[in-house]
Parts: sequence; structure tokens; C-alpha cells
Amino acid sequence: MAITTLNIPIERAEVSKIEQVDFDNLSFGSVFTDHMLVCDYKDGQWEPPKIIPYQAISLEPSAKIFHYGQSIFEGMKAYKDSEGQVWLFRPLDNFKRLNISANRMAIPELPEEYFMEGLKTLVKLDAQWIPQKEGSSLYVRPFVFASGKGFHASPADEYKFLICLAPSGSYFSGKVKVLIEEKYSRAANGGVGYAKAGGNYAGQFYPTQLAIRKGYNQVIWTDDHAHEFIEEAGAMNIFVRIGDTLITAPTSDRILDGITRKSVLDIARDEGIPVEVRKISVSEVVEAAKNGSLKEMFGAGTAAVISPIAGFGFKEVDYELPEIEDSYASRLKKRITDIQFNRSEDKFGWRYKV
Amino acid sequence: MAITTLNIPIERAEVSKIEQVDFDNLSFGSVFTDHMLVCDYKDGQWEPPKIIPYQAISLEPSAKIFHYGQSIFEGMKAYKDSEGQVWLFRPLDNFKRLNISANRMAIPELPEEYFMEGLKTLVKLDAQWIPQKEGSSLYVRPFVFASGKGFHASPADEYKFLICLAPSGSYFSGKVKVLIEEKYSRAANGGVGYAKAGGNYAGQFYPTQLAIRKGYNQVIWTDDHAHEFIEEAGAMNIFVRIGDTLITAPTSDRILDGITRKSVLDIARDEGIPVEVRKISVSEVVEAAKNGSLKEMFGAGTAAVISPIAGFGFKEVDYELPEIEDSYASRLKKRITDIQFNRSEDKFGWRYKV
Repeated sequence: MAITTLNIPIERAEVSKIEQVDFDNLSFGSVFTDHMLVCDYKDGQWEPPKIIPYQAISLEPSAKIFHYGQSIFEGMKAYKDSEGQVWLFRPLDNFKRLNISANRMAIPELPEEYFMEGLKTLVKLDAQWIPQKEGSSLYVRPFVFASGKGFHASPADEYKFLICLAPSGSYFSGKVKVLIEEKYSRAANGGVGYAKAGGNYAGQFYPTQLAIRKGYNQVIWTDDHAHEFIEEAGAMNIFVRIGDTLITAPTSDRILDGITRKSVLDIARDEGIPVEVRKISVSEVVEAAKNGSLKEMFGAGTAAVISPIAGFGFKEVDYELPEIEDSYASRLKKRITDIQFNRSEDKFGWRYKV
Repeated sequence: MAITTLNIPIERAEVSKIEQVDFDNLSFGSVFTDHMLVCDYKDGQWEPPKIIPYQAISLEPSAKIFHYGQSIFEGMKAYKDSEGQVWLFRPLDNFKRLNISANRMAIPELPEEYFMEGLKTLVKLDAQWIPQKEGSSLYVRPFVFASGKGFHASPADEYKFLICLAPSGSYFSGKVKVLIEEKYSRAANGGVGYAKAGGNYAGQFYPTQLAIRKGYNQVIWTDDHAHEFIEEAGAMNIFVRIGDTLITAPTSDRILDGITRKSVLDIARDEGIPVEVRKISVSEVVEAAKNGSLKEMFGAGTAAVISPIAGFGFKEVDYELPEIEDSYASRLKKRITDIQFNRSEDKFGWRYKV
């Protein structure tokens, strides 16, 4: 591990808000810790980050974030083990993906040291906010947006990088039902679907609302050309188990390269589960549901962890998935959360001590 | 015209900044007038708008605009005629389109009165900021963004609608050269390309930067499936003149329904110009450039007005367009700007007195 050379200045909050928080009844991402990291891009470079009390941001009305959606983010979690030690999960992968997103959105790349040391210093400072209740976690949200001024439709000359922390309950409550989309799309070939860019999420809200009104929780996106192949679910990548084989779509310029997704693939292979990374047609899934070979579907993502899917809708027909013993979803979820919470050996080297 | 029943409260700026502005050297959208309109959506409804001094906005770091790109906007211009009277151009069409965008981005629709009366009151108040120099104008930017808090990837519960005004010079300086895109895409079928949504613009920045480095000003987007057909240019719709026929692509869920675009179509028909609204293949344009039947290409948009295209690049080959007498671009630009500046009869009823 590199020696920490960066000393991040900390302005402490005068009073902590922690006593006001009901840690037994946390929703997802709606209360925030006492501090945040801020880092400004000005005059062609990122200035050193600092930690300040969590507070409002002041921006010009012409700041490009309001007009042209130039923003990217990451999602991570911080875990506390039974000894009180704090861990992150593959944070360098989040850092690398943030810069992949930055490139596609014409945002200047962040220096690794600012991200990693900023993250560690902030999480350490607010470590007492990490929830201890099973299923709860400290959600970590690094994000970058265009703060530079002007109505010209071109990249901003100033940006802000922040990290905020939110003690959170589960992303989904109850069983997850999904709708396989036939009309709307999330991403174009040659577009920005692989980037964790703000606009990718806003575009999903309306079709998702339509699905929610029909009784589903999420949309499973399909290709925009013929809605023939399953892509991802916006907040999570999708896995399908047909017979004993676990299948997920390959990443592409339309699909987010999920960190939970690739961890699930590695663990599944390690468990001896037959794994296929290939295009999954909707008709194959429907057929498998009809003939009984569709054993499981689940979503994988940082916020969603591993979320079993109880059923899906397609062309006005609902398909229920069976409840099975020894599901891949539970096995894989146990393996991954045991690594995250330092309850098991970390043979892949994913755990990162804060 | 409807009787104004809405009285918009005005808090005047103590000191005007107008003396500091060099009206002879305006760039596009980089200085702003003394006032702005603000209107908040809270508790399930839009509160009445008010006008306040142009000032910074304060937002929570978890405001959804920073994370999920939930934002829409419009672009308009205010014109002053030789008598000093102030005009807008088809503003109700901007209002209607704003709500079309709002629906797609899961943003609550704005009441017409708030938009129209707010717009008129603000433009009247800052009318002395309308530049008088030919080619300059007062650019009007209505926009709506998600100000509600929280990291859950779902629509916000609070929004802000603002109108800001920017005295502006031309959007393009000099000749416009465009690159026909072969790799990247702007919009998906079933996506948000037809909405004036922030994220649609950020996604264009990187490919446009690549094009600028090669010596072009803008990208002409093509379909994301095979890059076979010309769609639009992001900041403007595209018109092609082959022989004497003026051709533009039909609007779709991937293409913005431009107000300048549809005005150009109406004027062209009125001028007796043969007009076709149909798919335009890239190969047809390249073929026409090669055999000399490609007479003109131009972009049409509020910011760009009508911008003649001097040449285009495709597959590493540059095609120059001829300089022609009595170009459609100049005829149509004169007709449309004469209507906008109240220099001619307004047979279509497009002018709107402020």
C-alpha cells in the first residue's frame, strides 16, 4: 500500500447531528453525515480536496450542471466489522470507473490520490455513522458536476468533486418485480450508457414510473433496436439462472460495468457454478419461464447488493419465479457480504482497510 | 390576447450591472441581466413565480440535479424593433415543448400562466438589455431542474423553474464545418432525444471535442443502429438542398422538434421552394456532393438562427459546399429575422408582443 503523503485539511462540524438519526429506521440515501469532501477544478486543474461540515452548495444560475447535465457519480459502501474496523470494497475500481465516465462526459479526470485519500479520510472521520444493523450500511457517494458558467453548449471550465455519506437502509423493500421493456430505452449504441452519468438515470424515471403504476419495481432495459435482448436494470445488472447455468449480458457501450456484477461472476466461478457471459434474448427467458428451466433472476449492484427477482412482466403477461432452496442469489450474497464485512477470507483481495 | 390576471412580484436589483457590459463584443450566453424569474415546486404544486435580482442558487449536495440529471430547458430570443417595441417568437411553442420535455423526464408540468406571464414580465423589466447590434440578441433561457434531496434513483419531490436572460453575440463565429458521425450517437430509439433534457447535451461534448480537434465545429448525428441516416446537429436541426429541393429529416423520438426548423419549413413552402421531410441517408448526401447536386446545407435553431454549412467531413474525406447566389439559407434567414424584428408582415402569426 502506498504511503499517504496527502494531508487533507478538515474543518470539523461544531455539533454532530448523529443523535437526531433513527438508525433502526433508515431509508435509502436520505440522511447525511456531519462532513463532506469538496474539491474544485479551476484554471485547468483540480485543487487539493478539503473536508468541511456538510452544507449547501452555492452556484450561479448559468452553471452548466443545470443546463447540460454534465455530471457523473459513483456508489460505494463502507462496512464495519465486529471489531469495529472499517472497510471499503474495491474502491480503486470505483475510482477508475469514475474517470472512464469523466472521459465520456468531457469532465477532467481526477487524480487518484485526491479520490482515494479523500475517501479514506472522510469515511474515517464519520465512521461512527456506519450503521450496525443487518441490511443497513453507510452509502458513499462520490460525484462530479459542471459548476462553470455559461449557456454555450460546450464543456464547463469549472467542476466540483464531492463525496457525501448517507447511512442507509435497503434500496428495495420487499420482493422485486421487474418489467421487461418493449418501448422505451435506456441507452444508444455509441452513447453514454456505460458511463455513470446523471442523464442516464433521469431518462429512466418516466418509463419506471409507468412500470411502478403497473405493479413492478424496476424496468429491465432491452436493446433500443428491437427490444430483443436483456441489457441491465438501471440501478443494477441482471443475472439469469437457466437450469444450473448463471448468465449475464456482456458489458458494452450501453451497459454499466458493475463492480458487484464482476464480483458475482468471480465468486460464481470460484463456487464452481457454470457461468456464461453472453447476450440473453427476451424470448429465451420467457421460454425458460414457461418450461420451468428459469430457476432464478437477480439484480446486482452496490445499492441493491444482490436482489432476488420474484417475477417479471412481458407483453402484459406476468411470470413468477419459483422459490428455491440453495439459490445462487443467497449463496453469492452471503459470499460477497462476508468478504465486505470481514467475516471471511478475502481470496480476491477486494477488501480495503480504511 | 388573454387578459393578464397574474401579478408577478418584482424585487428590483439595487444597482444595475448594465454599464459594465460591452455590447459591441458580446459572446454567447456569458453575461446576464439584472433579474431572473424563480418558481418553486413544493408539496405537489408549483408556487407562484417571482422576479428577484440575478443571484446564486443554494442547493443541498444531495439535490437530484447533481446526481441524476433531471433537468430540461428552452431557448428563445427577445427582439427589439426600430420603434423600441419588444417581441418574442412563438413563445407558446417553447412552453408546450418544455412540458413535453417535462413529461419525458418525470418533471411536473408547468402552468402556462406562470411561464408566459413570467417570461413577459421579466423581458419587459430587463428590456434595456436587448442588444441593438445586428447579429446580437437577448437570449432567453427558461429551465427546470430537480432541487429535491436524496440519493434514491427516482424523481425528485422538489423542482426549481427559472428564467435567465443573456445579451449574446452569434453562436457560431465564422464558417461552420460539420463532421458526419460514424461512431458515437446522440439518442436511442425510445430514449430522450426529442426532449430538451440536460443529459442529451453533456453526452455530445466528448464526440464534439474530437470533431473540433479535427477542425470541425459541430457533429451531425446519425442513427445509432447503422449511422446511415442524418438526424440533427445537437444545437440545430439540419437542412440539405439537393438540386432545388430542400430536405430535412422528420422529427422522431430521437430528434428535437425545433421551432426554427418548423418555421423554416413553413416559410420555404410559402416561398414556393420544393420541400421534402423524409429520411436523408448519408450516402445520398455524399453522392450529391460528389456529383455537384448538393447546393447547400444549413443548420436551424434558436441560438444558431440559420447557419450555413461550408463543408462536411465523412470517413476522413472533406467535402466543400459551393458558394452560391440567392442561397435558400440567406433567403430564409432574411424572411425569418424580418418577422422576428418586426420588419415585415407576420402572415403566420408568430410574433408575440411583450
